[in-house]
Amino acid sequence: MLAHAQVAAGVGAGTTDPADPTAVMLVVVAVPPAALAPVIVEALRRFPQATVTDVGSVKAGVLNALWDSGADVGRYVGSHPMAGSQFSGPLTARADLFVDRTWVIAPHRRSSEGAKAAVAELISVCGAHVVTMDVEVHDAAVARVSHLPHLMSVLMAGRLLSVPGEQLQLAGQGLRDVTRIAASDPGLWQQILGANSAAVLPELRAVQDQLAELIKDLESEGALRQAQDTAGVRPHLERGVSGTRRIPGKHGAAPVQYRQLVVEIPDTPGALSRLFADVGDAGVNVEDVSIQHDPDRQIGYLSLSVDPERADSLAETMRDAGWSIGESAETP
Amino acid sequence: MLAHAQVAAGVGAGTTDPADPTAVMLVVVAVPPAALAPVIVEALRRFPQATVTDVGSVKAGVLNALWDSGADVGRYVGSHPMAGSQFSGPLTARADLFVDRTWVIAPHRRSSEGAKAAVAELISVCGAHVVTMDVEVHDAAVARVSHLPHLMSVLMAGRLLSVPGEQLQLAGQGLRDVTRIAASDPGLWQQILGANSAAVLPELRAVQDQLAELIKDLESEGALRQAQDTAGVRPHLERGVSGTRRIPGKHGAAPVQYRQLVVEIPDTPGALSRLFADVGDAGVNVEDVSIQHDPDRQIGYLSLSVDPERADSLAETMRDAGWSIGESAETP
Repeated sequence: MLAHAQVAAGVGAGTTDPADPTAVMLVVVAVPPAALAPVIVEALRRFPQATVTDVGSVKAGVLNALWDSGADVGRYVGSHPMAGSQFSGPLTARADLFVDRTWVIAPHRRSSEGAKAAVAELISVCGAHVVTMDVEVHDAAVARVSHLPHLMSVLMAGRLLSVPGEQLQLAGQGLRDVTRIAASDPGLWQQILGANSAAVLPELRAVQDQLAELIKDLESEGALRQAQDTAGVRPHLERGVSGTRRIPGKHGAAPVQYRQLVVEIPDTPGALSRLFADVGDAGVNVEDVSIQHDPDRQIGYLSLSVDPERADSLAETMRDAGWSIGESAETP
Repeated sequence: MLAHAQVAAGVGAGTTDPADPTAVMLVVVAVPPAALAPVIVEALRRFPQATVTDVGSVKAGVLNALWDSGADVGRYVGSHPMAGSQFSGPLTARADLFVDRTWVIAPHRRSSEGAKAAVAELISVCGAHVVTMDVEVHDAAVARVSHLPHLMSVLMAGRLLSVPGEQLQLAGQGLRDVTRIAASDPGLWQQILGANSAAVLPELRAVQDQLAELIKDLESEGALRQAQDTAGVRPHLERGVSGTRRIPGKHGAAPVQYRQLVVEIPDTPGALSRLFADVGDAGVNVEDVSIQHDPDRQIGYLSLSVDPERADSLAETMRDAGWSIGESAETP
């Protein structure tokens, strides 16, 4: 960490020299979840004039530890910038990392007005916009949109330990998508989940209830197989579809239904380059892209998500350029 | 469907003219799951000399319906080709669709040797390789690697209906990945799950048990937070990581750890084209690619998965070409 601080100082981010403790006005604590509370307490003690904030992804647990510490917690205001997920280390730092991003302030009941104003000013200087949330609301939000999905992925991936290798040869892209985040660092996630267990547990219990209902409804599905659409597992599946539609689209906009064009690509260097050059010639903006590999042959399929109104002209241009084009029709 | 058959005939796939029922030697049934059994029974009755197979993704339920039908089931052998997920309709048909793919034969106890040989010959003519699995093993395999992941995605997506819109603004790529397949057609999935409920239910009950344990272990996590790594939720997270490592890599090979380079791209037409042209100049094969959008600004990040031994030279080439490059360090 000192090496990182020295590199940061070297590129103009300040100094690693010891500061006069009484001259420090703002401390931003950015350490792993389990280390947050002691480092915040230490900062409050060591810098008696400073406002202290942190950028941790869970808030309530830290706060509870602070109440017990006897530290001057009025000078602490927790915060959580929604930015910075792709790069790490000072060499990839960017002055505009927070510009136009959401930065949650989660004040507690004894946060001083001066401390709240200082953190709001920091956020403003960084170009982000402040969203104030109660500590409990913030922690519930990340439990629902981040920690619960992680555990669902973990539960699914854990089940694969019981699947014979022969059967895993039938695995497709769906399984890979659902289990991708389960490969993340268990040490970090243990800290996050430990810190936010109070908000995660009600979500897990809600899934438990829903799962029990799903099992009951699937048990009765056989008898209902020819019955109306509202029977058996159908309502669960419909809820799933509705849930996916609630996730905001890119750039915070409402979700857009893009059309997907599927292009066959040989698995060789340069093929993607030629392909995107041809896409570029069509002048169509590609909103998203994914590759699915043929499990047995040395080719792949590239899915291009594009504006529905531009899809036909893109398909025509690509066919003219010699590519094999289809439309994605997901089948299990 | 007749229109599709006419198009298929038009491109040389045969004829839509009625056949002499006694001259038909092989019938391949490719219809939605709920329609499989009656269509197979009808084929067995109408074509008294024919071997009948199907390409449905679930086997046991169809077979049970056949037992009850009084049809000559000795001439039926179920099968399931692991191919064809990206395109639909005769215009995107390909002669090499099944070449080198796995095609499961799932015979039942009264399948005749002649019928099994006829289906094996069909598979051989198509260039696929036969994997023979008991009906129950096949259905268990798809329950585990396809149907269970779908339901886990559905359960997670369904929970989003209870999340206030303000909180959904904190959603990231992990949530999108886990819930992607939950957006699939509920009608089709109701049929699949109804047909395979016997194999899916034990998987759901196993998840139920694991979830109950996870809840118990997370309840005790607070007390254990500073304890050893084997405590609380840690074993669940470790199992998840191990499970993801069991999924076969591309082209059926063992999973390879690729390195991910992250490139910042402006969200404008042509940017991807320029980027892939520069990647092409580096002569490095891109194994996988994904785009993450900045939720607030008009830029995105492209993750390129590449051979670890080629990553450094690619990064250098790209930096020389003026791109902003980082390495992916996934943080929640």
